[in-house]
Amino acid sequence: MTDTVTSPVRLTMVDSPDQPTPSAALQELYHGFEDELLIPLWTEIGDLMPLHPRSKAAPHLWRWESLVALADRAGHLVPVGRGGERRAIALANPALGGRPFATPTLWAAIQYLMPGEDAPEHRHTQHAFRFVVEGEGVWTVVGRDPVAMNRGDFLPQAGWNWHAHHNAADRPMAWIDGLDIPFQYVTESQFFEFGRDEISPAERTTPERSHSERLWGHPGLRPVSVPGSQPGTPLLAYRWVDTDRALTDQLELEAEGYAGTIEPGHAAVRYANPTSGGDVLPTIRAEMHRIRRGAETAPRREAGSSVYQVFDGSGRVTVGDASWSVSRGDLFVVPSWVPFSARSEASASDSDSAALDLFRFSDSPIFEALHLDRVHVEGQKA
Amino acid sequence: MTDTVTSPVRLTMVDSPDQPTPSAALQELYHGFEDELLIPLWTEIGDLMPLHPRSKAAPHLWRWESLVALADRAGHLVPVGRGGERRAIALANPALGGRPFATPTLWAAIQYLMPGEDAPEHRHTQHAFRFVVEGEGVWTVVGRDPVAMNRGDFLPQAGWNWHAHHNAADRPMAWIDGLDIPFQYVTESQFFEFGRDEISPAERTTPERSHSERLWGHPGLRPVSVPGSQPGTPLLAYRWVDTDRALTDQLELEAEGYAGTIEPGHAAVRYANPTSGGDVLPTIRAEMHRIRRGAETAPRREAGSSVYQVFDGSGRVTVGDASWSVSRGDLFVVPSWVPFSARSEASASDSDSAALDLFRFSDSPIFEALHLDRVHVEGQKA
Amino acid sequence: MTDTVTSPVRLTMVDSPDQPTPSAALQELYHGFEDELLIPLWTEIGDLMPLHPRSKAAPHLWRWESLVALADRAGHLVPVGRGGERRAIALANPALGGRPFATPTLWAAIQYLMPGEDAPEHRHTQHAFRFVVEGEGVWTVVGRDPVAMNRGDFLPQAGWNWHAHHNAADRPMAWIDGLDIPFQYVTESQFFEFGRDEISPAERTTPERSHSERLWGHPGLRPVSVPGSQPGTPLLAYRWVDTDRALTDQLELEAEGYAGTIEPGHAAVRYANPTSGGDVLPTIRAEMHRIRRGAETAPRREAGSSVYQVFDGSGRVTVGDASWSVSRGDLFVVPSWVPFSARSEASASDSDSAALDLFRFSDSPIFEALHLDRVHVEGQKA
Amino acid sequence: MTDTVTSPVRLTMVDSPDQPTPSAALQELYHGFEDELLIPLWTEIGDLMPLHPRSKAAPHLWRWESLVALADRAGHLVPVGRGGERRAIALANPALGGRPFATPTLWAAIQYLMPGEDAPEHRHTQHAFRFVVEGEGVWTVVGRDPVAMNRGDFLPQAGWNWHAHHNAADRPMAWIDGLDIPFQYVTESQFFEFGRDEISPAERTTPERSHSERLWGHPGLRPVSVPGSQPGTPLLAYRWVDTDRALTDQLELEAEGYAGTIEPGHAAVRYANPTSGGDVLPTIRAEMHRIRRGAETAPRREAGSSVYQVFDGSGRVTVGDASWSVSRGDLFVVPSWVPFSARSEASASDSDSAALDLFRFSDSPIFEALHLDRVHVEGQKA
Repeated sequence: MTDTVTSPVRLTMVDSPDQPTPSAALQELYHGFEDELLIPLWTEIGDLMPLHPRSKAAPHLWRWESLVALADRAGHLVPVGRGGERRAIALANPALGGRPFATPTLWAAIQYLMPGEDAPEHRHTQHAFRFVVEGEGVWTVVGRDPVAMNRGDFLPQAGWNWHAHHNAADRPMAWIDGLDIPFQYVTESQFFEFGRDEISPAERTTPERSHSERLWGHPGLRPVSVPGSQPGTPLLAYRWVDTDRALTDQLELEAEGYAGTIEPGHAAVRYANPTSGGDVLPTIRAEMHRIRRGAETAPRREAGSSVYQVFDGSGRVTVGDASWSVSRGDLFVVPSWVPFSARSEASASDSDSAALDLFRFSDSPIFEALHLDRVHVEGQKA
Repeated sequence: MTDTVTSPVRLTMVDSPDQPTPSAALQELYHGFEDELLIPLWTEIGDLMPLHPRSKAAPHLWRWESLVALADRAGHLVPVGRGGERRAIALANPALGGRPFATPTLWAAIQYLMPGEDAPEHRHTQHAFRFVVEGEGVWTVVGRDPVAMNRGDFLPQAGWNWHAHHNAADRPMAWIDGLDIPFQYVTESQFFEFGRDEISPAERTTPERSHSERLWGHPGLRPVSVPGSQPGTPLLAYRWVDTDRALTDQLELEAEGYAGTIEPGHAAVRYANPTSGGDVLPTIRAEMHRIRRGAETAPRREAGSSVYQVFDGSGRVTVGDASWSVSRGDLFVVPSWVPFSARSEASASDSDSAALDLFRFSDSPIFEALHLDRVHVEGQKA
Repeated sequence: MTDTVTSPVRLTMVDSPDQPTPSAALQELYHGFEDELLIPLWTEIGDLMPLHPRSKAAPHLWRWESLVALADRAGHLVPVGRGGERRAIALANPALGGRPFATPTLWAAIQYLMPGEDAPEHRHTQHAFRFVVEGEGVWTVVGRDPVAMNRGDFLPQAGWNWHAHHNAADRPMAWIDGLDIPFQYVTESQFFEFGRDEISPAERTTPERSHSERLWGHPGLRPVSVPGSQPGTPLLAYRWVDTDRALTDQLELEAEGYAGTIEPGHAAVRYANPTSGGDVLPTIRAEMHRIRRGAETAPRREAGSSVYQVFDGSGRVTVGDASWSVSRGDLFVVPSWVPFSARSEASASDSDSAALDLFRFSDSPIFEALHLDRVHVEGQKA
Repeated sequence: MTDTVTSPVRLTMVDSPDQPTPSAALQELYHGFEDELLIPLWTEIGDLMPLHPRSKAAPHLWRWESLVALADRAGHLVPVGRGGERRAIALANPALGGRPFATPTLWAAIQYLMPGEDAPEHRHTQHAFRFVVEGEGVWTVVGRDPVAMNRGDFLPQAGWNWHAHHNAADRPMAWIDGLDIPFQYVTESQFFEFGRDEISPAERTTPERSHSERLWGHPGLRPVSVPGSQPGTPLLAYRWVDTDRALTDQLELEAEGYAGTIEPGHAAVRYANPTSGGDVLPTIRAEMHRIRRGAETAPRREAGSSVYQVFDGSGRVTVGDASWSVSRGDLFVVPSWVPFSARSEASASDSDSAALDLFRFSDSPIFEALHLDRVHVEGQKA
């Protein structure tokens, strides 16, 4: 059926206690497997079925200042337009074979738009969000609804929504994009369509609040005109003022002796879909964590991977055997089942007493939907 | 088995085309049925299985000023304390046999607390809420969390939560209670426990925001420390400032040419459980409707019943054959499948140009959970 | 607003420690309440909000031989046809005011069809089933699908399906109908439509298996052509041969030392919706219980009510303070929160060693959907 | 941060209309990206975000006789035991880089057990099933419950259940294993534990029916002792006698003029979880299709991939540009969004008039759980 010369299957006899004893007959069998495009479990089981996840991905840190410098350089050299679609530059995990994957399931990129530039309209099944660590002036236009982007804002956009971006300011702006591109790449579920080449003047308006926020941005209230639940959130902007206040409230409740934080000194909110109470996107969870100066989180392992960006403050994060001092804008990945902890501490250049604020996104909704989620926190029962 | 003399079953032969021909034998059969506690379908089917719901309840209106006057009188005559538990006075639908049921499933009452008074702690499986049409100064203490009650606030409290109330002001305060007491009465699912006779000094504090609001009152955000969904909302107060803004936003979006309202000039928000996006209580839906001055809603029928209270403005409401001019505080019921519409119009004593704001609660979640929901809006496809 | 003379509200002052002290002023207040159709909580709370359900319904037993004798008499006196619709005779709980309600939520009736008779086609939102304790020869025609009815068969039919019955045999046949008529009566959610006056010759065929069984009656298999879940089961017949075997298997597994029964000597199966794994009907649960000769079930309380019919064997059942020796066909009700237990024992006229088989239906799905379910089994943790 | 020499990222300037114009400055930028482990979207978008899935996997066919011959050879050369765990030989899609993946998400292998052999006990998060195209004599022991394996049986086993196999016959036996190994490999969610080295004598019994079948194998019935829904099916064997009858019923219903088949001459059943009505395994769908001699299925595309095995009969299958005549035991893959159709036709060596029976398994539950499912059938509306 298959020409041996071109078979991609290569099997090697190994002289090892847990492998069959090498012999001419075994060699012949392995050649037969190669010819027929077959691979035995017994040579692969250690890699395929480990005792616990042993991620192919590596813990890794990207410094924000390096990213911004390169993005700015690209802003001057690389046009943004139909075809390339976006001036987005992705984190490539050093252990994932030179592919633009931050983790096996998650894409993280810095996107950069020069003054007056537009990123053209398109839509795709990949679920996406923007998160703004600094700057302002860009509007993302989702389903013809212009949404302002400012520091601290989280802007999700579920798959198959039309979207474009335009920079209405006189300065460049950078932000991060998070998508499930690698997940949809490996499962092969991607669809894509080009939209209009130009957005309309009405979509170039710069309202303080988007339509979506006016419909969905009121705590505990939903418009009666839009019943039911939706897989992705209809709320297109989660503003920093709300996130900051929620985190402040949690730490103050803790100080007053009430429950609210995850652990002492560690507040966290999850961005939620107001139609379901679940995650904002079917495949991506997003959260903001605040660690009080001096506090440290318990080492935690999760099946599934995360990408973090330091939103504010400084500290030290530990991801398996790696450990880095981090400050505003730095990005790092936590591979599946690798223990993670963070400590909030002042840096040399950081005279304030602020907490460490960490933005996190992960592939947890995939694992939970498929009943594959597992978490282990040091010091807690499994 | 049963003594004929005391059988509660009484059957009467009727000479009618759809009934069996009266005869001595039939009479004997009917006596046999009575003796054995049996009732044939053929004498009852018209009442039991109508072509559509024909409610036992009647449309009815209660004037707020009358309710408040009587409640105030009760405030001076009737102590509040263990045993009676609450100074709550319920609407008794005139067609429901003199029972304290606003509709077959819903309880609506005015509750009244004198300065310095406490309503003692208890809990019950009945789901409840408070809604404040005027006044301030009372705190409801739910699960030891003191929650301020002010004009326009909606304060749900799911079944089996401990709760007490205390009036910290120097004036009496009235509000309305909504519960599913009739539903749990007919289905016989009620449990009740007495709590502490006195709440602690800490629970007498008068914070601007409750713990629940500090944890759950941020739009689109939820505390990571409390995962999953809960049958009843953990958010104990929905503040008027938010509700008002959401309604204003919908009408402004409509004016700008965007979707958002239910129909022209008719904005509405539903109070939602942030852990599920569903109704605040498993058996009760609550909404606030705003009808622009001059606008009128399309007649609408629903399987299931509602109670409305005019929160602000004035207008005319039509419930089946009844029609009333209404103003602030007035309460009325809409029985199952009776058409309802409302028109916002100025009253003689009403010089302002405000819209008509209608607070509504209903038993819709029961119907939806059991796949018994039906809606018909005049002019729309079924 | 209301003429005092006709007010249905009647309030009585009571001289009791937990009531306000009688006085002329109080009397005047109560008259004011009556005038305005108001009822205070403090006079009603004991009835409305008991510490646990105190059912209005009474435990009661109906003997099968009495029912059949009266039904047969009705077969000769009362025609079946359009208008009366069905020759169904309902159990009227002696404590429910002479209404045809077995419990506050459930209808149970004996239905009787003479040789060659047809019960005409109609549909209604009330969920229904048939259960056959003896006899054969009637076909129920649901959605034009003729379904044979034989001893031990359970035949559910979710609301709003067209259905008729015809007796193709030369003998009368009796069976029981279970419906949620009282529940839909009190919640006022009923719709009803008349169908064709005559079913077609094709629907008078008498196939061994219905279409629904041929599509849905294969264990663990579903037709790919009908995806998704449905509120009511699409399987229209659950045959005794399957039920009997399932119960036999459970008791044999227990005898071999494996799990499977509910408690020693007590096997039970629930009729399930193959599209969801849940109850067959949105408002009604149905089960068959088998109690090994000599075994006794632990007393059990549930929020919600049940109706039982003895399918086979004999024994003694205890419902609160009542206790009866029962045998084939006898029907009895278990009101909400009243403890129930059953003991399998030989009767005088019963020489065999068979187990006691109890068919049960209940309103449990209502309680579970609304998070109102509670169960207490003696000897188990709450 | 990263040594250029070892960076896995390699970027090449391309002189193309949709790429930035090559220049020394661009080259320098690309080197900067390489140094910082960054990859721009604009060079990758065509591969990452295609207009529709363009699978990396190729359509491919494996002939059963070749597989069995090699498996038998392995039976004589390769011991089965702790470490290698299973004598399973996996299909390696020729376009997936020499890895043992039938598709990007699915594992398919032939497993082979010699007379008297045991495959040792273990458990893993990977969901698995066995399907038997020929032979008998092996018992799979899942959770200590011995389950017979015979021709036509489907035997699912949800993740994290202990399982072993033993061959009680005097002949070798082959079957296929399906698992989500590739999916859990790429998402990195795998856990694994070794069990007992020997199963007990009681587990070596050879009962006709397993405990699981005795509890769960009755149509429409479930044991009351095991409430709720479970992610994976508790029914461990779906017997051919039931599957065959269900398919026969569908084709007969079609012949009688009733609905039931997917399309003319094409019957299909899905193996279902009786606790939920959903798929047997959280990540794997399994179905049996029967195509009447002479009938042909409409070309169908699905987001997601499938593996088919011919269970019986013969015919011609078309997968994108490939087309093969197939007969009993042959296995082939249908990659994501590649159109598939099958025609039932007699082969030269096939004198009977039987239909073509195709066993299929796919990753559809993953796509549906994450709202990524899409299907297109030629001749139907999207």
